[in-house]
Amino acid sequence: MNFVEVIAKKRDGRELNEDDVRAFVGGAARGTLGDEQLAALLMAICIRGASTRETTLLVEAMRDSGACWRLGDAYPEAVDKHSTGGVGDSVSLIFAPLVAACGVPVTMMAGAGLGHTQGTLDKLASIQGFRAAGNREEAIARIERCGVCFAAQSQEIAPADRKLYALRDVTATVPSSALIVASIMSKKLAVGTKRLILDVKWGTGAFCKKLAEAEELAEALVSVAASAGVMTSALVTDMNEPLGNCLGSAAEVRAAVEVLEGRGDRRLTELTMALAAEALVMAGRPADEAATALRAAIEGGAARHKLDELVLAHGGRPEFTHLPRPSRTVTVTAPRAGVVRAVDGEALGWVAVSLGAGRRRQGDEVDPAAGLVVHARTGDRLLAGAPLATLEIGARDVSLDPLLDRLTQAFELGDEAPQARPLVVARFKGNL
Amino acid sequence: MNFVEVIAKKRDGRELNEDDVRAFVGGAARGTLGDEQLAALLMAICIRGASTRETTLLVEAMRDSGACWRLGDAYPEAVDKHSTGGVGDSVSLIFAPLVAACGVPVTMMAGAGLGHTQGTLDKLASIQGFRAAGNREEAIARIERCGVCFAAQSQEIAPADRKLYALRDVTATVPSSALIVASIMSKKLAVGTKRLILDVKWGTGAFCKKLAEAEELAEALVSVAASAGVMTSALVTDMNEPLGNCLGSAAEVRAAVEVLEGRGDRRLTELTMALAAEALVMAGRPADEAATALRAAIEGGAARHKLDELVLAHGGRPEFTHLPRPSRTVTVTAPRAGVVRAVDGEALGWVAVSLGAGRRRQGDEVDPAAGLVVHARTGDRLLAGAPLATLEIGARDVSLDPLLDRLTQAFELGDEAPQARPLVVARFKGNL
Repeated sequence: MNFVEVIAKKRDGRELNEDDVRAFVGGAARGTLGDEQLAALLMAICIRGASTRETTLLVEAMRDSGACWRLGDAYPEAVDKHSTGGVGDSVSLIFAPLVAACGVPVTMMAGAGLGHTQGTLDKLASIQGFRAAGNREEAIARIERCGVCFAAQSQEIAPADRKLYALRDVTATVPSSALIVASIMSKKLAVGTKRLILDVKWGTGAFCKKLAEAEELAEALVSVAASAGVMTSALVTDMNEPLGNCLGSAAEVRAAVEVLEGRGDRRLTELTMALAAEALVMAGRPADEAATALRAAIEGGAARHKLDELVLAHGGRPEFTHLPRPSRTVTVTAPRAGVVRAVDGEALGWVAVSLGAGRRRQGDEVDPAAGLVVHARTGDRLLAGAPLATLEIGARDVSLDPLLDRLTQAFELGDEAPQARPLVVARFKGNL
Repeated sequence: MNFVEVIAKKRDGRELNEDDVRAFVGGAARGTLGDEQLAALLMAICIRGASTRETTLLVEAMRDSGACWRLGDAYPEAVDKHSTGGVGDSVSLIFAPLVAACGVPVTMMAGAGLGHTQGTLDKLASIQGFRAAGNREEAIARIERCGVCFAAQSQEIAPADRKLYALRDVTATVPSSALIVASIMSKKLAVGTKRLILDVKWGTGAFCKKLAEAEELAEALVSVAASAGVMTSALVTDMNEPLGNCLGSAAEVRAAVEVLEGRGDRRLTELTMALAAEALVMAGRPADEAATALRAAIEGGAARHKLDELVLAHGGRPEFTHLPRPSRTVTVTAPRAGVVRAVDGEALGWVAVSLGAGRRRQGDEVDPAAGLVVHARTGDRLLAGAPLATLEIGARDVSLDPLLDRLTQAFELGDEAPQARPLVVARFKGNL
């Protein structure tokens, strides 16, 4: 096969067949195709798009490029939750113990942070000793012990995805619905997920800046998942401001603990409850019972207890009072009185990354103590001088002036209250 | 500058500015950008296209990536001729001595063969001792001696073009009007061409399969040339069948000698005369005088004599009876009686390449003796068994059966004569 002809096909907007896709993904995984050829095809896919059939072929080829853990064979009722990436979003850390406390096993294939967002694996790494499962045996041992397993994409899972992911990052081909779907679903299928709850973010702090893009992505994810035999429910949710009030590894673990103790951030709690309810309904519970069970798990302490159990099962110390603490904090305040009309989540995310809470490039170390706490939320009425946000500075030397400016500018103050936006905008269900 | 943002701009169909283009071309020439980033941007340009301003910026940046010979400063009236690539096209070998014999200096920046076409430099290499100019001094010495200089793209001319050209070949990004214009014009500008005659081919044997594509390319070439201060005239010409009746290095030199001796192929003669007339008109001759002067240069022997002079000035032996000869020949014949409705020039070109007359990949050696002679032309009425074409086999061992089949199938025989097509279809002139 002449791979130039495969690239030319997609360049001209024609559909790739199974041989084409296998040549592409196999060549990426085995290193037999040059980066320049992979990059040219990625760009052509990014601009021309891909059909559901092409995306499904991509997903399957990428799944088959490495090991398959088949966790769904051992735990057919286990559920995974995935978010397309947002700011102040520690839902995974709450969802897993909460859903498991209600009797539904949870297998979470988690990732590292990307761009202005922070990743679940990085947050978990702020808990001393915590280690995500790196192979099937470790995953099973964790589920057996506590009903939850956090897994990390190891060398053996979907190596083609790792290769293509690194290329997409430097070739401006990240925002392709087909490539996003393939990246997410190939890893889920490789670990053997059979039930999946998706949180597809839209808004200024998300990768999909427009609602229509997020809805299109949600539909694509759900339809590709269905054709791969995965039962899926996708919520499209608001990311026009940070979800919770904490950004950064240790800060987001603290935020999760607060929600599990019934005293957490309102929006973070609301979205976690909505996603967890989807999981229980998928497991066969009636919707009203699901909501009651979730509230009971929090109010009765079972969910909080499950967090300790799962941290122990992953080798960590469940003493959250010992989480890394910032070396110092700086608070920015409102330059005038007014109503908070908008909070730019992406700007806050980049400020947190600048402090060390995320990565600018692969291989960067994340500082678990770095982050920020948001005090003023959209719709709040403030007096001049009221606190907007507090920087939590860790071990990294940073030049504060530009960060403080950027942080202050992330809060848009005005005179009229903005229109309220619903947190959950739409819901897509995959029919098997 | 973050180059990912430059790629994203073009991915989204936005216009690149001068800094963006300089970063791209400079990064290609200096090797500071990865092949994957260059390839992604090439594909985005290929699909999204480029404005005249972007293309001009590309041309200038590519010109400036290497040495500039400024031949036009020394010989402002000198003319260059360029074809976008066809089959059986030895016009350059005729045009140069013919136009020079009429008193207009000729500087030809010539290339090697590409794809199914044969390159002027390869054809000249079949003349023993012939050496194209590789730097400014060599170019000037040749013009001083005979009024003609054939120059080769050396290491020092437009290195960014060489880098991008090699990438385009393997990433399916060759057919981009902007990139074709940039590749052609950057080299012309680097040697200092001030007057340019373009032969833009359309048809089955050309890179532009559709007339509209060729017209668009001709317009783009002419407008970019004008904005770079180059006086240009572009003819859009028919390449739905081979131009002359010979393909291959030595065979095409023979075909050129025949035209210069007034006994050459009719179509090859006609097109060369049309292009040479453009050159004389550009040099200030009235159109009717130009045609008369050209005919006189052939009939009086001045053009043929100029060929000997220019071969000598380039170190070659002007004894064309000593050109490499095929080791054997095989002729295919018409399987039925009928009219030749079409001759597939691209198929004939690939057959010639298979014999060794061209390159499958960079670095392949060209066999000067290999080629083929076409006997049956579009519109000819044939008896069954009449000769269609003769393979001229050189030093390479080839499996003949598939080649003979392909050769026979390249001639479409029917019952009704096809509609005649004009050789010169359109003419574009650049206004300075």
